[in-house]
Amino acid sequence: MRCEFHVAMADRGWPDCAKSLKGVVLDLCGVLYDSGEGDGVAIPGSIEAVQRLKTSDLQLRFCTNETQATREKFVAKLQRLGFDISVSEVFSPSPAAVAVLKQRGLRPHLLVYDGVLPEFDSVDQTNPNCVVIGDAAENFSYQNLNEAFRVLMGLEKPVLFSLGRGRYYKETDGLKLDVGVYMKALEYACDLEAEVIGKPSPMFFQSVLSDMGLQPCETLMIGDDLVNDVGGAQHCRMKGVQVRTGKYRPSDERHPTVTADGTVDNLAQAVDMILAQRGH
Amino acid sequence: MRCEFHVAMADRGWPDCAKSLKGVVLDLCGVLYDSGEGDGVAIPGSIEAVQRLKTSDLQLRFCTNETQATREKFVAKLQRLGFDISVSEVFSPSPAAVAVLKQRGLRPHLLVYDGVLPEFDSVDQTNPNCVVIGDAAENFSYQNLNEAFRVLMGLEKPVLFSLGRGRYYKETDGLKLDVGVYMKALEYACDLEAEVIGKPSPMFFQSVLSDMGLQPCETLMIGDDLVNDVGGAQHCRMKGVQVRTGKYRPSDERHPTVTADGTVDNLAQAVDMILAQRGH
Repeated sequence: MRCEFHVAMADRGWPDCAKSLKGVVLDLCGVLYDSGEGDGVAIPGSIEAVQRLKTSDLQLRFCTNETQATREKFVAKLQRLGFDISVSEVFSPSPAAVAVLKQRGLRPHLLVYDGVLPEFDSVDQTNPNCVVIGDAAENFSYQNLNEAFRVLMGLEKPVLFSLGRGRYYKETDGLKLDVGVYMKALEYACDLEAEVIGKPSPMFFQSVLSDMGLQPCETLMIGDDLVNDVGGAQHCRMKGVQVRTGKYRPSDERHPTVTADGTVDNLAQAVDMILAQRGH
Repeated sequence: MRCEFHVAMADRGWPDCAKSLKGVVLDLCGVLYDSGEGDGVAIPGSIEAVQRLKTSDLQLRFCTNETQATREKFVAKLQRLGFDISVSEVFSPSPAAVAVLKQRGLRPHLLVYDGVLPEFDSVDQTNPNCVVIGDAAENFSYQNLNEAFRVLMGLEKPVLFSLGRGRYYKETDGLKLDVGVYMKALEYACDLEAEVIGKPSPMFFQSVLSDMGLQPCETLMIGDDLVNDVGGAQHCRMKGVQVRTGKYRPSDERHPTVTADGTVDNLAQAVDMILAQRGH
């Protein structure tokens, strides 16, 4: 269907478009908090910013490529940091992957972080006929990557799922390689193309929109990853705003293919601007 | 210069072209031997095949992307396996990399196998301004790859050298991921293109030809890697023959972009055919 909001929003820059919004989708790591030792640390102003969105007339969802823990575990972590957030508001790749595996009758060889394994408890993992990789971090050893490679090379029709395609993320002690890097490694090793589950997959954004019952043009994504958060959302005709926290780098603002609808210092500033436009 | 041999060889199939050859270049792993525990094992017939080439009127060189040991060490290993081979006949990426680093005044951060480190002893490695990766095998841990990534991301003009771009190789206990896989990983992580030193770099093949004093059209490369041995040599207008040993897979014979000038069961068969054509 044609979306009248979309035309109007495209004509006006950020933050003018905030007037016509009905929903906001937030990335977690790098927007609400920086991960690292223990629970990580909340980004200044973000706890209050989430609270202000919750008490506004906007719908709010959280959309993450986090695959180091079950949703229950990392939502509990965010609650400990002080965020008002519940599991049902959070979309992450692992439950989406489980649904795809069951639908297609696939039995995964998992190369993921130990903490996320319980998400896959309900899936048959005997005699694997596909490989699923997540942000395995230290589990991305030479031996484990080799094992995933051998499983793929042994299949007549190798299928690789990657839970996201991010290049790196920022922890409190510096940048860390993300799952996309190992997806590229296995793609090259096996001469295949991975299927991405999670951002920037359009199907993943669509599942969030469906849950809110909103059109893309009524919805704004706020993230620190220019390509996967902002570009992914824009590809679905949502608006995308980047924060200058998390993995943000100044070179993002002159990226050759993705231009954010707006760039703000942090989530608190984004929420200030949105609510000001809406007369709050 | 125009090479008359080249036209003649292109018109005739393998093994007819063997009559006009003046030199043969052999890959090592997968052609002479299969690597694995200890020294690995010689491929049947290959020791005698090398000996027959040595006593023919053809020049002979060895060209490898081996970067797990110094040339001295792996030549000694081949000698223990029974091969008549000396260090001066062997071309490998590490000495070539050392020459490039010195020429360009670059100080490497090394992500390589411990055994090859002595090759780089003469190179200043303080305050690195580039990264060199080789076939590091178990050293390709998440932590080490992350460290190389951070060095590159910290450089204004990141430079990554990869000692080869192979996808995988075969050891006695199965296929193993090669350096090219990790090159692709870092290329994606840092959004850059690596410079390859070793096969299939034309400069690397040219250094072997220069050492023999031969034109490409007078020279045949025999290897088990269709893309890096055969395709790389053909790109330099050498002939390229693939053996069905080592990492060879039947699908190589219907590869979309590289077609070998000939495919033989093993090195012994190739040498039989070459010498038969030459009336030996």
